[in-house]
Amino acid sequence: MAGKEKPKIIIDKNQMRTWCRAMRSQGKTIALVPTMGYLHDGHLSLIEEAHKHTHLVVVSIYVNPSQFAPSEDLSTYPSDFEGDIRKLMAVPGGIHVVFHPHNLYDYGVDAAVEFGGNGGGSDGRAAVSSLEASGSGHETWVRVERLEKGMCGRSRPVFFRGVATIVAKLFNIVEPDVAVFGKKDYQQWRIIRRMVRDLDFSIKVVGSEIVRDADGLALSSRNVHLSPEERQKALSINRSLSKAKSAAERGERNCKKLQNMMVDEILEAGGRLDYAEIVEQESLEVVEEIKSPVVFLIAAWFGKVRLIDNMEIKL
Amino acid sequence: MAGKEKPKIIIDKNQMRTWCRAMRSQGKTIALVPTMGYLHDGHLSLIEEAHKHTHLVVVSIYVNPSQFAPSEDLSTYPSDFEGDIRKLMAVPGGIHVVFHPHNLYDYGVDAAVEFGGNGGGSDGRAAVSSLEASGSGHETWVRVERLEKGMCGRSRPVFFRGVATIVAKLFNIVEPDVAVFGKKDYQQWRIIRRMVRDLDFSIKVVGSEIVRDADGLALSSRNVHLSPEERQKALSINRSLSKAKSAAERGERNCKKLQNMMVDEILEAGGRLDYAEIVEQESLEVVEEIKSPVVFLIAAWFGKVRLIDNMEIKL
Repeated sequence: MAGKEKPKIIIDKNQMRTWCRAMRSQGKTIALVPTMGYLHDGHLSLIEEAHKHTHLVVVSIYVNPSQFAPSEDLSTYPSDFEGDIRKLMAVPGGIHVVFHPHNLYDYGVDAAVEFGGNGGGSDGRAAVSSLEASGSGHETWVRVERLEKGMCGRSRPVFFRGVATIVAKLFNIVEPDVAVFGKKDYQQWRIIRRMVRDLDFSIKVVGSEIVRDADGLALSSRNVHLSPEERQKALSINRSLSKAKSAAERGERNCKKLQNMMVDEILEAGGRLDYAEIVEQESLEVVEEIKSPVVFLIAAWFGKVRLIDNMEIKL
Repeated sequence: MAGKEKPKIIIDKNQMRTWCRAMRSQGKTIALVPTMGYLHDGHLSLIEEAHKHTHLVVVSIYVNPSQFAPSEDLSTYPSDFEGDIRKLMAVPGGIHVVFHPHNLYDYGVDAAVEFGGNGGGSDGRAAVSSLEASGSGHETWVRVERLEKGMCGRSRPVFFRGVATIVAKLFNIVEPDVAVFGKKDYQQWRIIRRMVRDLDFSIKVVGSEIVRDADGLALSSRNVHLSPEERQKALSINRSLSKAKSAAERGERNCKKLQNMMVDEILEAGGRLDYAEIVEQESLEVVEEIKSPVVFLIAAWFGKVRLIDNMEIKL
């Protein structure tokens, strides 16, 4: 499809599956790029990556309530659907379908979704993450039990359960050949790869490199909430990762020392640290001394905004 | 395929998927009947049911280690592959493929499966249900959090987690249009239906009625382990269900009374009760007074054999 044409917008999951199956029966391969909308150049780079792998590209735009705890920022998560469509039309090669479902946890009259927690926004959004009470609402969750434990899993208790589950649902609806995820969400990317392996999904999961602004800040939909001053402080994330990476490349192998470097940089800038970790790339297990490929990861708060970033080190 | 022809036997999961996709591209629909082998007339009735729904029938024979706790009977679970093939050939309409994988939790050299617990048999079987330690072994589990809690979930802690996960894997390998499960495993059947709904699998889950021997005992691969005396005692299961069902049909609505009827019958026969419950059919929630369709379920031990059975009551 030419980039300047408006993509097909599908809101119904059965219609989405029907379209994909019709395309597949014509011999077309399909890539899925799952997003929560409010697209930036990072997302657009995922789409460009997707075009390298398949004939057709489907972008899903769905703010998944089940990955937000009631205390988290579901109700303020930014959105701009019309803006997203314009950006998608400008991507080289365009995209073919935007899958934009209303509520993927609503299974009809007999199975009303019971929304737990508060988190409800004026647009009807509500966290669907604490549904264990009773009734016939959604209750099936995919857990990647080891990889989900550390880092973001510690501070966001339902996050990866929600992510793995919504991705499994999207995989079953779209049935793509390829799915593209950003390596900015490194732990998420590893979790999805593991889920695909362990549940025998026939899908190739591609990780796409982090895109940063000119000042070094990794692109994120949440950056829009940063004040100019907070944004200035948040540049410490990239700085701390680069510093530790350089030190490691110059021969520092002691992770405690490298970690302290990262921590100091964030705290000096006035950030509130969630974690600064050095872990093995595949298993995400904490490393004390660098002997094999690792990744440096940081999560930190600047004002009310929690940001994450990471750098892989191949020695 | 004619019933007298030997079905195609596939052991490799990629080959299995390739076959199914080739068939689907020719417009054929596929039913999957998942089994753990040692087939009896109950299984064969599932296959007959499957033939009503699709062009092709795939039967999987795989003793799933992840649904057995280390203390359970994985190593003594009966098997007779050659006998199974003969029985499958005799089913009216036959079957098209037997999927008989060796180990669906082995992901290659870099991801050796770490077997937890004891439970290992001489044929290399080992429970794969307690893998949370470390490393790159299987770690993704599908949980149906409410429905898995009661009844068999109480006495078999990893059972439904293992069942839901292996069924999700088989669904992703075979990608069937229809899957047939026996209603003898009532809670399992409800869990699979819920999983399919909640994870948006595009699969119709059909429940097939319980098949009983002439003496009333529900068919089960485990019946082979009963001594003649134990089998005689085990008939109390069907008797107790029938008795409670008749009482309910005659107007008894008090579940405590009905439950006591069932319990007494089992204990008088010398069985060791695991549970006797009356629950709502869809939600499996315990009912105090019968007002809507319920199901009576029993699990009890006779010697070293644990048996389950149930009867639905539509009032």
